[in-house]
Formats: sequence, C-alpha cells, structure tokens
Amino acid sequence: MKNFISFADAGDYRALLQQAFEIKANPYGYKHIGQNKTIGLIFFNPSLRTRLSSVKAAYNLGAQAWVLNAGADSWTLEMADGAVMNGSTQEHIKDAIAVMSEYCDVLGVRTFPTLQDREADYSEDVLNKILQYATVPVISLESATLHPLQSFADLITVAETKQKERVKVVLTWAPHVRPLPQCVPNSFCDWFSEIDWIDFVITHPEGYELDPRFTKGARIEYDQRRALEGADYVQAKNWSSYQDYGQILTQDADWMLTPMHMAYTDKAKFMHCLPVRRNVEVSDAVLDGPGSLIIQEAGNRTISMQTVLHELLK
Amino acid sequence: MKNFISFADAGDYRALLQQAFEIKANPYGYKHIGQNKTIGLIFFNPSLRTRLSSVKAAYNLGAQAWVLNAGADSWTLEMADGAVMNGSTQEHIKDAIAVMSEYCDVLGVRTFPTLQDREADYSEDVLNKILQYATVPVISLESATLHPLQSFADLITVAETKQKERVKVVLTWAPHVRPLPQCVPNSFCDWFSEIDWIDFVITHPEGYELDPRFTKGARIEYDQRRALEGADYVQAKNWSSYQDYGQILTQDADWMLTPMHMAYTDKAKFMHCLPVRRNVEVSDAVLDGPGSLIIQEAGNRTISMQTVLHELLK
Amino acid sequence: MKNFISFADAGDYRALLQQAFEIKANPYGYKHIGQNKTIGLIFFNPSLRTRLSSVKAAYNLGAQAWVLNAGADSWTLEMADGAVMNGSTQEHIKDAIAVMSEYCDVLGVRTFPTLQDREADYSEDVLNKILQYATVPVISLESATLHPLQSFADLITVAETKQKERVKVVLTWAPHVRPLPQCVPNSFCDWFSEIDWIDFVITHPEGYELDPRFTKGARIEYDQRRALEGADYVQAKNWSSYQDYGQILTQDADWMLTPMHMAYTDKAKFMHCLPVRRNVEVSDAVLDGPGSLIIQEAGNRTISMQTVLHELLK
Repeated sequence: MKNFISFADAGDYRALLQQAFEIKANPYGYKHIGQNKTIGLIFFNPSLRTRLSSVKAAYNLGAQAWVLNAGADSWTLEMADGAVMNGSTQEHIKDAIAVMSEYCDVLGVRTFPTLQDREADYSEDVLNKILQYATVPVISLESATLHPLQSFADLITVAETKQKERVKVVLTWAPHVRPLPQCVPNSFCDWFSEIDWIDFVITHPEGYELDPRFTKGARIEYDQRRALEGADYVQAKNWSSYQDYGQILTQDADWMLTPMHMAYTDKAKFMHCLPVRRNVEVSDAVLDGPGSLIIQEAGNRTISMQTVLHELLK
Repeated sequence: MKNFISFADAGDYRALLQQAFEIKANPYGYKHIGQNKTIGLIFFNPSLRTRLSSVKAAYNLGAQAWVLNAGADSWTLEMADGAVMNGSTQEHIKDAIAVMSEYCDVLGVRTFPTLQDREADYSEDVLNKILQYATVPVISLESATLHPLQSFADLITVAETKQKERVKVVLTWAPHVRPLPQCVPNSFCDWFSEIDWIDFVITHPEGYELDPRFTKGARIEYDQRRALEGADYVQAKNWSSYQDYGQILTQDADWMLTPMHMAYTDKAKFMHCLPVRRNVEVSDAVLDGPGSLIIQEAGNRTISMQTVLHELLK
Repeated sequence: MKNFISFADAGDYRALLQQAFEIKANPYGYKHIGQNKTIGLIFFNPSLRTRLSSVKAAYNLGAQAWVLNAGADSWTLEMADGAVMNGSTQEHIKDAIAVMSEYCDVLGVRTFPTLQDREADYSEDVLNKILQYATVPVISLESATLHPLQSFADLITVAETKQKERVKVVLTWAPHVRPLPQCVPNSFCDWFSEIDWIDFVITHPEGYELDPRFTKGARIEYDQRRALEGADYVQAKNWSSYQDYGQILTQDADWMLTPMHMAYTDKAKFMHCLPVRRNVEVSDAVLDGPGSLIIQEAGNRTISMQTVLHELLK
C-alpha cells in the first residue's frame, strides 16, 4: 500500500480484513510499528470521529499524532499552479505539503467538495495536488468524493457480525434538511460492490443516482420496500443529487427509516456513519434499537485507521 | 471511584489526599497505570489551567490525551431527547458521547451554566446526559454548578502547607465586573464543609447566599472583617447571585481583598483559583505577597487530576 | 543555555552546530533527554512550520508537547503592571505565564509585532514579561524582532551543504503585497554576521535598512546585482521598512528573484524561510529549480528546535 484513497488501494481486501481482526483482538500488540513515527492529520473542515479515531489509532500503534486545522491554525493556501500570489492566499499548497511531509511519516488529509462545481469536485483537484507534492504516504480522511476509512470500518463491522456465508447489504438514501456530499455513499459503493460474499443493493428516489464509476453496475432499486426485503444489513445515509449537482430533489419523509421499514428486512442490522439527524433520516426507535450497530461501527473507525497505518508503516 | 463529579465521588477523602501526596512526591512513578490508555478532554468553553494540567496529568501517568473544543472542532450538538433534528443542530449528544467513549478510556468534560435559567443550570442537564450516555468513567472539568478538580487541588494546597492541627479557612466573595458562575464557590463549600480538621466560614454581602445543598450548614458571616479574624487561609472568589440568579447585586470595592483585610487574619495564606481580576477582586499586594499560594494552588491542579485519573484507571 | 531568544544565547555556535549534526544523524538517539518532560508551546498568532517542527522535535526527544492558541483556547491577557483589571482583559500575563510554567518544563512562545509602534515592538515588551514571569526556560518561537530557530536552521542548512571552506551568503530583500515584520531578516543578520567562515552581504532598496543592532556592521549593497555576484547562497525575504516603520516603500518587481538574478551568482543555492509569495517575491523557476534548498531548510526546523531543546533539558 502506497497511499489510501479508495478501494483500489486496499489491495487484497481479504488480507486487509484479516489484519484488522488481528489488530482488534490485540490493539496494543503492534507498538513497535509506530515507534519514532509521527502521523500528521490535516483538516480542511471539522471532524469528530475521524479526528479522534485517527489520534487513538496512532497512539495504539506507539506513534505520535499532530492535528492541524488548516486555515484556523495556519495560512490560507494557493491551489493554482504558476499563480502570481499577489492576492489573499499566503502559501502555495506545493510548499505547504512538501514542508508538512518533513514533519511526519504519514499524512492524513480531509478535504471537501464545494457541491457547486461537479467537475471540479470530482476531479479531486486538492487531494491530487496533495498526492503530487507529498513525499510521505497519504491517507484520505475523507475527500471530495470518497471516505475510504469509513467504508473499511463499515466492512469490518459487517464482517465481524455476519451470521451467514452470504449477506444482503442495502444502502438506502434518507431525507435531510441540508445538501450533503456524496462521499460516504460513493465510497460505500466503491467497497461493497467489490465484496464477493455480499449481495449489494442501492435504493434511492429517482434523480439520486450516484456516479457509475463508484456504483460499478450494482443493482439500483427505486422501490425502497423491495430493496429492503430480505436484507441482513441496512446502511442509511443522505446525499444530495449527483446529476442535478448538489441539489436537494426531495425531502420525502416516507424515506425516513422507521421500524416499519426495518420490518421488511430479514431482521437486518442497522448502520449509519454518523452524525445522523435523528427523526429526519432515521427514527430514534431504529437508531436505539437492538439491531443498531452505529456505535460499534464508529468504534471500528479506530480499527480501520490502525490497520491502514499498520500497512503504511510496517 | 466511578466518576468524579462532586465531593461525594471522592469516597474517603483522607485516602485520596494521601494518594495525592504520594503522586506529588513521585509524579512519574505510576506510568504503568496509564499505559495504552487515552484520556479524552472535551471543552464546551475555553480553559487554560484545566486543559494544560489535565494533559500534563495524563502524560505523567503514561497515558495519552486528546483535546476537543466542542463547536470549533466538531459539530453543534442537540440536547433534547426525541428531537426532530431538522434545525441547526448536527449531532445528538447521545451519539456524540457514546462515540467519544469508543475513542478513550476516561472522558473529561467541561460544561457551563447559562446564568439565565437557574433551574436548567442546577439540574446539570448536559452533564447528566453525558453521564447517561458515556460508557467510560467521566471527570467533570467544571460543570454548571461545581468544579471538583479545583476544590481538590485547593484541599491539597491547604493540607500540604498547614502548620496546625486545625485550621480556619475563609471563603470570601470579591467584586468583579462581570457576572460569574457559582461553580467554584459551590464546589469549595461542597468539599471544605466536610473536612473535620477545618473550621470553615463563608463571607459575602447579603443576597449572595449559595445553594444550601452545597454550603451544608456551614457558618455564613456577612461581616467580612469578623469572618477574616483568626483565619489561617483565605480563598477569594467572585460569584453572581444564586437567589437573584446570575445578577450582580453590588461591586462594593470595600470587599476587594487588600493587605488591610489580610491584617485581620492570623497571618493567613492567600488563595485564588485564577484567573483573577487584579486590583478589582484582590490587590496586587496580596496576590504577589509572601503569603500568596496562587501559583502553588494552580500547580496542584496537575496533582488533583493525576490522582483522580489514577483512581479511575488503576 | 538558559533561554533561547537570540544568537547570544547560542553560546559557542560551533559546538551547537556540531550537536545539531549529531542529532540529525541520530534523531531518536536522545530519547532519555526528554523522558517525563513536557514542552509547552504558546502561539499568539498562527504558525505551520514552527508549530509542527516543534511538536516533532519534542517527540523525537521522547518528550510530550502541548499547544495553546492564546485567545482562541484561553483568555485575553492583561499586559500592564498594576492595571486595575475592570475592562476586557481576563487574566494578567504575570499569572498566566507563572501558571503555564507549572505545567511544562520548557515554554516556547510566539509573539508578534504590531508594525505600528516601533519603540513598543523593539522593546520586546511581551517577550520580556514572559521571560520575567516564567520559572522554566523560554524558547522564542519568533518574537516581535527575531526568529532564532529559523536562523539556526538556516545556518545548519548552509553548513551541511557548503562545498568550500568559506562561502558568500547574500540576504536579499524581495517584493511583497503586505507589510511584513523584520524578525526573519533581523535574526538572519544577528546570526550570519557572526559566522567567521561566511562573507555576509545584505542587499535591499534604500530605505529598507535594518536595525544596526542586528546587522552589526555587515556590508550593505544597494545594487542587488553587485551583491549577488559570486554568491554561494542567496536567502530572499521581504520585510517592511524599519526606518519608516512598517511601511511598504516599493514593490519594484525588478527585485523579484528570477533565474536571471541567480545567473549573477556562483551557481548559488537558493533559500527562503517560507511561506513565500510565488512569482511575487521569487519566481517558480528559482523556487522549484535544482539549487533550491527551501524544503531541506524547512526540514531543518525540526533539527534546530531539537538541538535547542536538547541543550535546555540535558
């Protein structure tokens, strides 16, 4: 593994999953791996789970971590090559990233989409510049289009709880009051469409189709009820439209996941990456019910990060 | 000790004090206790002493600490049970605290009072929700009504400097330009009224009576001079009115502690939890005088936190 | 070494440089030095290099570091002795610094100039108060007039790359769109004018003369081309006027360093402390050319800090 940006970087996902289980069983057993290592974490927008689980993962491996809130803690960055920097930007990303690479052994970076300009967002311009200028391995802590540490944690969660050889996993769109990025669902598709023991189904209102580059031909079912039938796992998540980019096309409350919806499934476990708008995306009864895996899923964020750090540092 | 919220959690205070002295004598002698442990510190408002002393205490015990400035670093939190979260709050405290519990072994939390709604503040709604949802031990880093780590540090300071079997300790109200919480004086009363070798007296202008739940029948003396007579220790602190909730009833400069006031005492040591408004609450001559313990008292914040962490992790 | 504020604190610079080379060759070989030590880092304005390199330097020595963004993370500070604090300041610097000294073994502090009042800035009022009240060694992380960790890193960079016994080093002023402090050029002069194997020349437009206290009689050449002739190292940096304090006297683009300018030199290596306004101060072709040392120079910030910490903690 050279960087960790998407499913493609995972290599043999079965081996990575096996490593994750070993780390979860023995979280402090790999402290030699991180000795004398520093993990740099740069956030271009706020974070709770990613920030704290990454710091914890570094500690568990015997490494140190620093966190930089770009903007608040440092300078405003210039992104354009060849720019004459006589405006408000104070440092070129080329210099900032090369310099940060001097102060750490692995660089984790969270960027974000504008939700205004699809082409710009989906070109992953900022992340690609970081990859270009970094001289150490880079981990995406969520980018404009993907969130691989979340998807890997989701996969760990399914793999460690499943009670059948094959399982049906449904990703369902859920209503929200604000337009959200497509990173989490894109990434979920990027990973879950590739797992051979998973029957993967995506359900959402028409107009919410995700980028086919990530759904990779997975079954899309516009009838939520039909999608949920027989499901073993349901991951709920809102996203704004990819086609009508960044727009909210509907807030139809019928899509809010309730016990009635869960009743269509085969006693499915419930998942959500959090934060969740309670009683808008999903009802309290589902989130707090016995089948809810949301806290375990969040806890596995430490394991996914620790596993990726282990691969990059070993 | 399961959590550390008030004096009641201290258990046998003599044993806790003894442990504090041992830790102060040998601050790096307990590093096995914190090995592989992570201490999470969440601040809902700014902090200097609590933040830095807590981080240092964690290090001294061989543990790692992370600090989260709620709001700035993460999301805005919903507090109401059953809320339909279609407004500005982004994550329910129920989920945030359960998730943070996944990323640490002990959770320290600083909340704060509104000073607008006494019933709400004194119900400790936020802290109680945190206690309800946390799955790891919780330490109050100051709440709406109490500041136990400060009071324990104050007790350590008195215990390690006293030169008599019994000592008289006076808590005196002091003027200020802004309305301040009652946490520090409430907590001082909560602790000092329970110590059998302390004669404890509270002095303040009429109308500044604290919640009797915390003063527990301690002697209240409205005449500051009479209160100070024969005192061995004077702790000065401003607070806003509990009865006329959150109001400033007087700024009477006669209550500002000066050498003239200290002359009424039995060469008392002077204490203040800091920050202090110099020459408003207390004059420079007292703060910088030979009897001032304010820096030693602040230094003992590391010891009080380290002792509490030791109890929770051992 | 008691504190690290200017070249004078370096003592025998040859010995310090030798120590730096040993640390660079064996960065994790001095972990016993920092054991059980805490490094406090206080920033009164934003930082990238200083913040991250200082944290990394502490880790490399086996020490722990905490970072405090003054203002954002804590209180507003009163600077005036004897002030009646009935205004907006919440804590006196006297108390804040004495207290912070309780929570760390070395204190690093970044202050900054107003660029409005030369006398106030050059009196280093804030830094001197910190030195007065701190009870642990103090490291300047850049002050109103100097930036010694940067200059020491610059010296390490020249010393480890030079291929002659004696080298000519030129500090050249460069254009900028905003008025910048004189700290970096002052400090560069403070150090480089004292090195016996360096021929040191300063070049800038008339009116940009630096404080003679720091240039110490070094050769000043107003003709940039003549200054650059035969140079082995060129350090470019903008600064605002010291004489016409804080003013921008010219933005003459002829002073922007380009390959044409570098052609006057003896194939000089190029240096800049960063952040740099690309194509305003220096052209991309110079910054990204084969003779550019800017990233190595930034990397040496870890070494300069680690060497200074080693001196103070050993």
